[in-house]
Amino acid sequence: MVSRRFTAEVLNVGNELLDGRTVNTNLSWICGRLTQLGYVVRRATVVRDEKSEIARAVKEVLRRRPRWLFISGGLGPTHDDKTLEAVSAALGKRLVLYPEVVRRLEKRYMQLFEKGIIKDPALTPERLKMAKLPRGAKPLENVEGAAPGVLLERSGVRIVCLPGVPKELMSIFERELAPVLAKEAGGRGYVVRSLTVKDVVESVLAPVLVDTMTRYPSVYLKSNPKGVEDGSVVVVDFIAEKSREDELRQAMEYFGKKVEQMRGG
Amino acid sequence: MVSRRFTAEVLNVGNELLDGRTVNTNLSWICGRLTQLGYVVRRATVVRDEKSEIARAVKEVLRRRPRWLFISGGLGPTHDDKTLEAVSAALGKRLVLYPEVVRRLEKRYMQLFEKGIIKDPALTPERLKMAKLPRGAKPLENVEGAAPGVLLERSGVRIVCLPGVPKELMSIFERELAPVLAKEAGGRGYVVRSLTVKDVVESVLAPVLVDTMTRYPSVYLKSNPKGVEDGSVVVVDFIAEKSREDELRQAMEYFGKKVEQMRGG
Repeated sequence: MVSRRFTAEVLNVGNELLDGRTVNTNLSWICGRLTQLGYVVRRATVVRDEKSEIARAVKEVLRRRPRWLFISGGLGPTHDDKTLEAVSAALGKRLVLYPEVVRRLEKRYMQLFEKGIIKDPALTPERLKMAKLPRGAKPLENVEGAAPGVLLERSGVRIVCLPGVPKELMSIFERELAPVLAKEAGGRGYVVRSLTVKDVVESVLAPVLVDTMTRYPSVYLKSNPKGVEDGSVVVVDFIAEKSREDELRQAMEYFGKKVEQMRGG
Repeated sequence: MVSRRFTAEVLNVGNELLDGRTVNTNLSWICGRLTQLGYVVRRATVVRDEKSEIARAVKEVLRRRPRWLFISGGLGPTHDDKTLEAVSAALGKRLVLYPEVVRRLEKRYMQLFEKGIIKDPALTPERLKMAKLPRGAKPLENVEGAAPGVLLERSGVRIVCLPGVPKELMSIFERELAPVLAKEAGGRGYVVRSLTVKDVVESVLAPVLVDTMTRYPSVYLKSNPKGVEDGSVVVVDFIAEKSREDELRQAMEYFGKKVEQMRGG
């Protein structure tokens, strides 16, 4: 079991993720970065653009008490951007206007105006909406777009809200969160190496996987049948904490030998 | 609100979905097919290969009572394939050996043996595991792989377990489930059309989206900023039930005109 300090959950918001229009690459990206940094993502939840659904999911996550909750999507200026409203409701906080965010938005829309991209730089209600954050939250600067990210804490869970546009999400994560996460994890992190096994089906590999994990308990093995020619191509991932890279190498060697014996025998 | 009869949830099982190794294309594929067939996916959950986590998520879904629950992953022969064990535990059912599945597995491994892909066609414990299904479940034939799909019902929720290998999942869905779903939905289904708007930022489009939806209440609009050149490319999706395709067309025309006026004005 991993310590609670290094656990996370993800909550993705957006109808487009639940009707087949969009593949959830934000989830795999966040999970990949968190894993590299030394965190374990315990669960991900995807909900539609409905305030009550988002709020309900947030409350459920808080009960499971991961150290971090990363929420993506629903921060923009349109009618279906309801994440902050929902998070505020779930936490019993009010949305308040953040003057520093207002100033940033003013600057941003003025720049777009000067570039001729918009005809009116005024902060309309739709634009001002993005400056209303749950009371007590810390805005996270978005250098790639309008809506800021949001960081707040409740019952020891750090809640982060990020825009759904991938380049904005990635930029806020890297600039504002990755340094904090890396420092907190203090050089932890996981290494993943893969071996591709041909012409041995997964049911034959199964006992070898268990045997290898018994011998190298700090290494986790996971097989992924690629379904080529009757499943006879299997990619085996070897996963270990960075500090156990030596054992991971030994486990790969041991596993490789066992598979060769099998093939020969 | 959509009738409960046409609601679904998805539960994806697999560490690889939560550590960045795999993008969850099974989710977007299932959601796309269900949407075409006339269903609304209310939520998706992704959990790791842990029996207690899977069982807990299943129980939570049952409390929300969607008509369908589609579970993917964890049906294979290896140590981390725990889905059926977890589903059985959640439902308080026992896993029992299904002779018809045993016969299918015998046949399959004999064929692989005859093709020279495996050296021993015997049903090892790892292979037999795939013939153990929750008591009362209906096996769903998998013509692309070994592990059968599973269909069972609890408290009015139809629970479907599918393998995580995409071609096996798709094949079982299309052969065994799509006809049932289509019949049940009786010609429902959603149409999605998209318009790409250039050089108008999302905050300017926001009131036009609301205006169009107010005028055409059976059409749902969703904007997706593509983040190219300061967010000035926005793809707007128009979504309506198949029977409302005319209104969808009218809404697109109306929206297009409004945006043109904006650009000119």
